[in-house]
Amino acid sequence: MSDIVILGAGVMGSALAVPAAEAGNAVTLAGSPLDDELVDTLAWSGRHANLDAALPDTIRPVRDDALEEATLTAADVVVIAVSSPGIPWVTERLRRSGARPAILALVTKGLVASDDTDAPPMTYADTLPASLCATPDGLVGIGGPCIARELALGYPTRVTFASRHRPNAERLREILQTGTYRVTTSADIVGVEACAALKNFLCIGISAMFTAHRLGDSHAKNPLAALYNQGVLELATLSAWLRSDSRRRRGEVDDAPDGDAPVAAFDLAGMGDLHVTVGGGRNSRLGRHLGEGATLATVLREAMKGVTVEGVDTGRALASGFRGACERGELDAARLPLTQAILGCVEDDRAFALDFEELPG
Amino acid sequence: MSDIVILGAGVMGSALAVPAAEAGNAVTLAGSPLDDELVDTLAWSGRHANLDAALPDTIRPVRDDALEEATLTAADVVVIAVSSPGIPWVTERLRRSGARPAILALVTKGLVASDDTDAPPMTYADTLPASLCATPDGLVGIGGPCIARELALGYPTRVTFASRHRPNAERLREILQTGTYRVTTSADIVGVEACAALKNFLCIGISAMFTAHRLGDSHAKNPLAALYNQGVLELATLSAWLRSDSRRRRGEVDDAPDGDAPVAAFDLAGMGDLHVTVGGGRNSRLGRHLGEGATLATVLREAMKGVTVEGVDTGRALASGFRGACERGELDAARLPLTQAILGCVEDDRAFALDFEELPG
Repeated sequence: MSDIVILGAGVMGSALAVPAAEAGNAVTLAGSPLDDELVDTLAWSGRHANLDAALPDTIRPVRDDALEEATLTAADVVVIAVSSPGIPWVTERLRRSGARPAILALVTKGLVASDDTDAPPMTYADTLPASLCATPDGLVGIGGPCIARELALGYPTRVTFASRHRPNAERLREILQTGTYRVTTSADIVGVEACAALKNFLCIGISAMFTAHRLGDSHAKNPLAALYNQGVLELATLSAWLRSDSRRRRGEVDDAPDGDAPVAAFDLAGMGDLHVTVGGGRNSRLGRHLGEGATLATVLREAMKGVTVEGVDTGRALASGFRGACERGELDAARLPLTQAILGCVEDDRAFALDFEELPG
Repeated sequence: MSDIVILGAGVMGSALAVPAAEAGNAVTLAGSPLDDELVDTLAWSGRHANLDAALPDTIRPVRDDALEEATLTAADVVVIAVSSPGIPWVTERLRRSGARPAILALVTKGLVASDDTDAPPMTYADTLPASLCATPDGLVGIGGPCIARELALGYPTRVTFASRHRPNAERLREILQTGTYRVTTSADIVGVEACAALKNFLCIGISAMFTAHRLGDSHAKNPLAALYNQGVLELATLSAWLRSDSRRRRGEVDDAPDGDAPVAAFDLAGMGDLHVTVGGGRNSRLGRHLGEGATLATVLREAMKGVTVEGVDTGRALASGFRGACERGELDAARLPLTQAILGCVEDDRAFALDFEELPG
């Protein structure tokens, strides 16, 4: 049994609390300052309002103002499960408490633009301070096709845990895995984190095919499958680029073998998660609007007003580093037409336009 | 302009006639002895009954009994577009005419069990006589996500042409490619053919997830994505096995590099086509029945009586060679639980059963 504190009581953190508790751990679900209402509702009703699901009563929900530092310092595992804007709250909380858990697990996904605007963006695997963990490689990224509500309801779900020190990923698997929450492990944390962030971005362009090519009362499937395939290939190229840049920054050999682990893009965090992401959710919804010819600004002002679309933020963090890499010849823009078409929407508010003749032969 | 004869006037051959004609070639669409009615209807109405689409009037439909040998001998390209049982008709037709086209394109998909029951099955890339073409490597396999009706209606579609002699694939691309029928090329014809056949088989087990895990009035997406991902990984393992066996039979070095072509399983003929195949069609329909607990025999006797399910035939051709390879240690059965679960249905008429705990970690 381990002591686990999940920071962030939104849908994904709360859903992850379910296998964590079912695996026999002591689980504290700590809300961010934005989660007070969710935590209060959970405390009196046993149900999570946004998940629309009951959670095991062994989970201890705690509001931000009631989270004691001793709870954090006693934790074997801390899970970062806020949305990207909550990262400063998490690091401040951990720093103030002096907690340095053996394992810091990362559910939050996103890219951080480099200060040098032409340089590649980074994943949280490189931007979170190593000092937050007890050991330098205590950070474990979590990726894979996982709709939070389905996890909370106990549907079979398969994800990847990745750590630069793979035994840490295996250790976290021992702690969290249940009969239905199934875990593979990898040493490629940057690849997994890059895929987890970029799949939201690429999903936008793929999902445009739902509406750009109608057939009867549904959509044509050939264009959708073609762009899904292209999306995975671009995910492989972009994540390899970010992984390579991360290794360069860290002074590591770039082509170090990764045991028997498949390339992240061609596994759960890449093609698996992209399969689910294209199937529904906010990024896909945005893409369907763009496929009808709307511009991003119009969609975010009207049909999706006030909705946070993670793939758009990822695109903004990607844009200038992507252009720099293309100019330096690190990336071949001609092999990345889907990325370019989505960036055209995100950066220049152009209509989504991808001619199939541009796809590499 | 090339002279093209398509042998087989079913949905896929007839759909492929559309870009072939639009690219400016002289196209003869020759029906098999089973296609007389389709050909007659097409001849008087201009529409293909099973495609529910009009075809360009430059396509020349011909019944089997009206196909002249001179038409075959004059062809630059012959396309084999029958279903598997039609292969003997095709080879007989070609042999009798003495035609030896520069390029023989292959749309028909399937595996052929080895005469030695423990040996791996073969793709048509190895079983079709090389003497049917003007050059030994004139055979070009076609794979990728391509619903025939969508191709006939002109929706953007992206496929792979594969030939052991890649310039032959590139030559066929020059002949057939249009603005919406887009083609990549590969030298891995066995990999492409193996994926094209096996994706039908693997689709059966993946599609069981649509019904095995219901959620509201739809299905849970986490289990489906997890098994789709597993299906692509098993496709990669099985197609690499068949490719390796093909090279061994041919006395080629097994690990010869394949230029810059991606692995077939992680491209259009694999993950791309599996994406479409799981979305609908007969293999997926069978899988959905199996996911409800029905056995194969019951489904084929009742709900899908008289329906040919290609994935079942592929499974039967795979079964004994697969077991032999596992016994010899060529394949690791523990990494192929989805394949095993589907074979349990196909061979032993067991209910589909795949515990997520069996999936490799």
